Amino acid sequence: MKRRFLMTPGPSPVPSFVRESLGREIMHHRTEEFQNILSDVHKGLKRVFCTDNPVLILASSGTGAMEAAVSNLFSRNDKVITVNGGKFGERWNQIAKSFSLEVIELKLDWGTSLSKEVLAKALKENKGVKGVFTTLCETSTATVYDVKAMAEVTRENDALLIVDAVSGLGQDRLLTDSWGVDVVVSGSQKGFMLPPGLSFISLSKKAQAAISKSDLSKYYFNLNKALKSYEKNDTPFTPAVSLVVGLKEALEMINSQGIEARWKRFEKMALATREAAKAIGLEIFSKSPSSSVTAICVPEAIKSGQIVKILRKDYGLSIAGGQDQMKDKIIRIAHMGWISEQDLISCFSLLEKVLKDLGAEFSLGASLARLEEVLYG
Amino acid sequence: MKRRFLMTPGPSPVPSFVRESLGREIMHHRTEEFQNILSDVHKGLKRVFCTDNPVLILASSGTGAMEAAVSNLFSRNDKVITVNGGKFGERWNQIAKSFSLEVIELKLDWGTSLSKEVLAKALKENKGVKGVFTTLCETSTATVYDVKAMAEVTRENDALLIVDAVSGLGQDRLLTDSWGVDVVVSGSQKGFMLPPGLSFISLSKKAQAAISKSDLSKYYFNLNKALKSYEKNDTPFTPAVSLVVGLKEALEMINSQGIEARWKRFEKMALATREAAKAIGLEIFSKSPSSSVTAICVPEAIKSGQIVKILRKDYGLSIAGGQDQMKDKIIRIAHMGWISEQDLISCFSLLEKVLKDLGAEFSLGASLARLEEVLYG
Repeated sequence: MKRRFLMTPGPSPVPSFVRESLGREIMHHRTEEFQNILSDVHKGLKRVFCTDNPVLILASSGTGAMEAAVSNLFSRNDKVITVNGGKFGERWNQIAKSFSLEVIELKLDWGTSLSKEVLAKALKENKGVKGVFTTLCETSTATVYDVKAMAEVTRENDALLIVDAVSGLGQDRLLTDSWGVDVVVSGSQKGFMLPPGLSFISLSKKAQAAISKSDLSKYYFNLNKALKSYEKNDTPFTPAVSLVVGLKEALEMINSQGIEARWKRFEKMALATREAAKAIGLEIFSKSPSSSVTAICVPEAIKSGQIVKILRKDYGLSIAGGQDQMKDKIIRIAHMGWISEQDLISCFSLLEKVLKDLGAEFSLGASLARLEEVLYG
Repeated sequence: MKRRFLMTPGPSPVPSFVRESLGREIMHHRTEEFQNILSDVHKGLKRVFCTDNPVLILASSGTGAMEAAVSNLFSRNDKVITVNGGKFGERWNQIAKSFSLEVIELKLDWGTSLSKEVLAKALKENKGVKGVFTTLCETSTATVYDVKAMAEVTRENDALLIVDAVSGLGQDRLLTDSWGVDVVVSGSQKGFMLPPGLSFISLSKKAQAAISKSDLSKYYFNLNKALKSYEKNDTPFTPAVSLVVGLKEALEMINSQGIEARWKRFEKMALATREAAKAIGLEIFSKSPSSSVTAICVPEAIKSGQIVKILRKDYGLSIAGGQDQMKDKIIRIAHMGWISEQDLISCFSLLEKVLKDLGAEFSLGASLARLEEVLYG
C-alpha cells in the first residue's frame, strides 16, 4: 500500500470531511430532510456558478449534462457552432452530430484559444446559428478560453452560449450571469471535491425558453421535468443521495471561502506551477494556460507516458499525460478542488527526482525554490 | 435525532460495511487498481443477474438504463408491447413514446399479473413486434410478473424481452439466461444495498446484435461504446468510482450467500409479511405478491398516508404509501437488500401501535406472533 496522491484533472482528491459524509446512513429522497438538503445545495450551487438562475443536478457524469444541453435546447438540423481545440471540444461535436444537429466546427490548434473576431466572423457567415458550444478549461490541452469575449459576440446574435465547465469551474473565472452565458455544465469530481456521479447544468431565461421548441428525443435528461421538480426541491428520478449529501458539505466549504478568493488562489497556484516548470527548463504547452490544470512539455528525449507511469507505480502520485497528438509529449498537473500548495511542492519534488533519473539536466531544487517564491512571495 | 429506519422499496438501507467503503480515498478510474475492481464487479453482477452475458454499469439512476434499453435496441416507429400494470410499466410507455416507438400497451388492473395467453395473443395480432417491455416487480403495486412465461412466448416470436428489475433483482427469482430474457435493467439502491447513482443493464447476444440496427439518437447511454469499454474493464465516461467500490463489497456479500439462498430468504420474509398483515385483519393488495415488497390494504376508515406520516415523524420508520389510484389505500413495506427479519418485527410492532392509536381493532401482538411462526417455523 502506497500513499495515494491524486493530481489528475479529475477525479481530484476528496477531502476527509466530504468522504465522511458519503458514508452516513442513507435517507429517503422524498422527505423534508432531503428537500432541505437540496434547497441548501441549490443555493450553494448558484453562488459557485455565479448565477441567479436554476442549477439542475443530474445523476450522471459530466457528459450526461452535456448531452442534456444538446437534446433539450435544439432541434433536428439546427445549425450550431462548436469550438474544438481538444478532446472536450471534440465531444461537443460528437454529441451534436449524434443528435442530428448541423455542426459548424471552429477548429483550433491545440493549446490556443478562440479570438472574438473569429467567432464573430463565423456567426456572420453562417446566418441562423442557434447555439455556440465551447469549453471553459479544455482539459486535454490545459487551455482556458475567453468565455467573456465569446458571450459578448453571442449576445449580439441570437445564439445560445453553452459552456462545458466540467474541469474549469471553481478555478477558472466564470461570471455566468454578468457575462451573459446561457448554459454552464459541470461535474462533481473536479472543483467540487466529490467523487464522480453528479453533473450540473445552469439555464438562463433564454435557455429555459428554448426547451419548449426542441423536438429531440430525451427522457432521463428531460430538463423541462427537472426544472419543474427543482422548484419543489425535488428531482424527477431518484437522485444520487449520498453524493448530494457530500455536495452540501463541499459547497459550504467553497462558499465559506468565497468563489473570488478561490479563483485568486488557483490563479496563483497555476502561475507557480508554470514558473516551477520553467525553472527546471521545461516549457508550458498552452498559449492561454488554465488555472485548473497545467500542461508541461517534457524534454524530447523523454516520453511523458514514462514519467506518468513511474510517478504512479513508484511513488503513488497520479498526474496525467497527453492524449492523441500530444501523447508522450506533455504531462498535465491539476490544481483544482482540494489540491493544495503543499501538494504542488510534493509533486515537483517527485517530478525532479524522476526527470533526473531519466537523464534530464537542471539543478535539483530549482522548481521548489521557484514554487515557494511565487506561492509565498 | 431519531433512529432512521428505512423500509421503503428504494432507497433501501445501506449496511455499514458498504457505507464505510464509500468514504475511502478516491482512486483514478484509468488505473489497474480500478480495472481490477471493475473486473471483480463484472463477474459478481453476472452471478446476481444469472447470466453469462455482459452486465454494463452506467452512472445514472435506474431510469437511465431503462432509456438505454429503448434508445439502443430500437428504431423510430418500431412496434413494441409494454406491459402496464403500475407506475413502472407506465414508465416504459413514456420512454418508448419519447423515442417515437409505436407502442401497443397491455393494460393490467393494478395488482394483477399478465397471463402467457394474453401476451401470445397480442404478439399474434400485432405482427412484427420488435420488443416486449415488462417489469419483474412492479413496485407501485408490489406485484411480481411471470417473466418466465413471458420469455417462453417472446422466444417463439422474434421479439426482444426487456425486463425492468430495478426493485425486484435479488429478491424475486429471475433466471435471465435459462429463461431466455434478453435485457435486464436494475439499479444500485434496492437489492444491491447501495446508495442510488448506478444502474445496470444485461444484454443477450440477440440484444447485442440489435444495437447496430438502431437509428435512435444517444450518446451518454450509447451501449455499443459501453460494450467495447466493458471488454477492457473500462467505461466510456467517468464512472461513479465510490459507488463502484461500494458495489464490490455488496456483491461479495450477496454472492457469498448465493442468490438462490437469498431468493428463499426473501420469499419467506414476504410470506411472513403477508401472514402478519392478515393476522391483524388486513388484506394483501396484490394477486401476485412480490418477494421484494408487500402492499397491504388499510382499513377503510384510515388513510394510509396518515400511517406513513406518523411512522416517519414519530418513530423514524419510513415505509411507502400508495400512488395514483391507490393513494391512501395501501401501505408498502419493503423486504429487500439489507432489510432483515428483525426489521419486520420492529416494523409490525410500530404498525400495530399506530393502527391501534387510529382506532383499528385487533389483538396486540398478533402480527408479531404470526411473523415469528413463519420466520422461525
